[in-house]
Amino acid sequence: LYKVATAALSPANICSPIRTILRGQKNCQVVMAEISGIDVTNQRLFAEGGYVTYDYLILAAGATHSYFGHDEWATIAPGLKSIEDATELRRRILLAFESAEYEGSEEARRAALTFGIVGAGPTGVELAGAIKEIAGFTLPRDYRHIDTRTTRVIIFEGADRVLPPFPPKLSARAHRDLERMGVEVRLKSIVTNITPEGIYVGDEFTPVRNVFWAAGVRANPLGQSLGVELDRAGRVIVGEDLTIPGRPNVFIAGDLAAATSADTGQPVPGVAQGGIQMGRYAGRTIAAETAGRSTPAQRKPFVYRDKGSMAVIGKAKAVAHIGRFQLGGFLAWLLWGGIHIAFLIGFRNRFFVLLVWFWNWLLNSRDARLITGAARLDIAVPRPAEFIRYEAATIETDCSSRNEKH
Amino acid sequence: LYKVATAALSPANICSPIRTILRGQKNCQVVMAEISGIDVTNQRLFAEGGYVTYDYLILAAGATHSYFGHDEWATIAPGLKSIEDATELRRRILLAFESAEYEGSEEARRAALTFGIVGAGPTGVELAGAIKEIAGFTLPRDYRHIDTRTTRVIIFEGADRVLPPFPPKLSARAHRDLERMGVEVRLKSIVTNITPEGIYVGDEFTPVRNVFWAAGVRANPLGQSLGVELDRAGRVIVGEDLTIPGRPNVFIAGDLAAATSADTGQPVPGVAQGGIQMGRYAGRTIAAETAGRSTPAQRKPFVYRDKGSMAVIGKAKAVAHIGRFQLGGFLAWLLWGGIHIAFLIGFRNRFFVLLVWFWNWLLNSRDARLITGAARLDIAVPRPAEFIRYEAATIETDCSSRNEKH
Repeated sequence: LYKVATAALSPANICSPIRTILRGQKNCQVVMAEISGIDVTNQRLFAEGGYVTYDYLILAAGATHSYFGHDEWATIAPGLKSIEDATELRRRILLAFESAEYEGSEEARRAALTFGIVGAGPTGVELAGAIKEIAGFTLPRDYRHIDTRTTRVIIFEGADRVLPPFPPKLSARAHRDLERMGVEVRLKSIVTNITPEGIYVGDEFTPVRNVFWAAGVRANPLGQSLGVELDRAGRVIVGEDLTIPGRPNVFIAGDLAAATSADTGQPVPGVAQGGIQMGRYAGRTIAAETAGRSTPAQRKPFVYRDKGSMAVIGKAKAVAHIGRFQLGGFLAWLLWGGIHIAFLIGFRNRFFVLLVWFWNWLLNSRDARLITGAARLDIAVPRPAEFIRYEAATIETDCSSRNEKH
Repeated sequence: LYKVATAALSPANICSPIRTILRGQKNCQVVMAEISGIDVTNQRLFAEGGYVTYDYLILAAGATHSYFGHDEWATIAPGLKSIEDATELRRRILLAFESAEYEGSEEARRAALTFGIVGAGPTGVELAGAIKEIAGFTLPRDYRHIDTRTTRVIIFEGADRVLPPFPPKLSARAHRDLERMGVEVRLKSIVTNITPEGIYVGDEFTPVRNVFWAAGVRANPLGQSLGVELDRAGRVIVGEDLTIPGRPNVFIAGDLAAATSADTGQPVPGVAQGGIQMGRYAGRTIAAETAGRSTPAQRKPFVYRDKGSMAVIGKAKAVAHIGRFQLGGFLAWLLWGGIHIAFLIGFRNRFFVLLVWFWNWLLNSRDARLITGAARLDIAVPRPAEFIRYEAATIETDCSSRNEKH
């Protein structure tokens, strides 16, 4: 997603239609509909104006952003959880440079070229590195009035290190890599307010025109209609078999589940591999029971296998934590790339992503730089004085030197 | 564009940022701003809240759809002129199959699977063929309740043949190719009304749930602020040197210009090569005069060279009219592909488009099948009765036979 947001990949490079993935599964149907509620007693799912019934249910509705009670920040500081989010971020990032190019004052230009990212988890770190790279390598030759290499990227993190779920050694490595790329990292900095002008950490104000949210996560509100206990983030607290209390036919998988691994007693982390393993557990359990090979009473508890975690910082910069191994730099980056490509669904996607990556690697190019959407100029509309001042500032270049008469 | 609309290519495959195209042109600046008016007397362009002045102006603001005075049709029958249009059409085409899949009645299902295209020019013909192909080859295995091969595509054309600007022989060839692909062609059919339920040609009503507009073109309204004569389609009537009367420094190029070729006295057609040749003429004229090599009095009149016209109908089906040559079928299609790829800007775009085309050709796949946009289910929301009926209809399949208790 962060590669779509920073114009390195197209949305279609990272998505496959669910229908096509499940094409070979003849006993499976895909229905596109928004589920408005669940009645676990009568085993019904309500969709717009109708319902369907089920024997088994796997609920995997995921999570969305949490602004910690400040939903008014959402329009100023969008997050990155869906393809729509990614194209919106891309639009904002590219428009930031467009508006900086014709800002009248140096101060306004600096603010337009400042990006604030709230949260130094994997998403925040990836986004920060990618913005710094596009500004430093892809865009410089395209602009006349700004040096995009002066773009500031500031990460605000409440904890005392970046990538808090990683071992301290890798956090330090990532921190060093980020600073080498020119990303400013502000630790122990809990954001208290966000305005269109900038970010407040307590009384400290930083002028930032572009803010992206990579901090809180809140489970899909659909969990509330189950009538069972939720945790603080709105996730459904599930039993050892990932079902809800008293309903052995209702499984929760992925970010919507507050699950515990039966062997360690540790919570299953909200990462892709957690979701994949939960989904597989639920699917296999249901397949065995509907085939008569097992019963709910015979279920083995869910065990989460940590296959490691990784985060990418920039070109040839990543960290990986796999079992006892802690890797940084080029090797971690290669591993990260290989695994992400392997998990992209569909051979064509893998093939094209590999090609596009190789291309970008060679040329530092980012060709998916489309500014789409209806409200194109809602950011930084030039005011009259600035617009004229913009022109005056161009008087020394060849073409516009012909404008000297006014 | 029609390949984006039918999910064969991604928007980024066919676009390059203007900034990057002009990157090497050091005396050129790109400003993203919406021009609200032009003052040719004081040589000013007004943008939001400000203005810039010019010595020479090339106005190439293009054209948009014309609904012949029925602007209320625009929301029902969108056209295909921009990337935003193309992704909107893609969304509608893919949602049509989604909604057909869970329609309750056979009648509603048939309506959801019927596409109407108004206009049998190149855009209409290309779109019709591509929808028929995606329905016939790409999608069939993805759906359980509908046979997408039964999709009807109907072209409504006011004239007495398809592709009216082409020689009658090629029109006949295209017509035959369309009918072989299963596209229904209705000639001498002037659409008199479009409703969400279907299309009226006089008193004759055809139930069509998905209507696309490929008929009228209207020039950008910016031409009105020049204070000179416009033609019926709102285009600016220009002189032999493509400038407006009394303003030898204001050139009009592309679809906004109503220009005449000096040798034949024939109007320059509203096609890409017309725009390219006009733009080149204006650019060279200005370059020569600003360099002191020429003066406005020495200008040679604009001559349009017709390099031929082509239209694609489907896989290995196209028509081409080049000078005295009239081609159809595979050869015309190869030519069409070669020329379109050659004119896509940027080596990477050409390279990837070629790859993607080759891939689609081999596998009949269309992998850019993203349904994006906020209002996802605004088309064909299932009503209660239908939603339940939908489920009842699935009773014979493996998985849902387990639902028999209700």
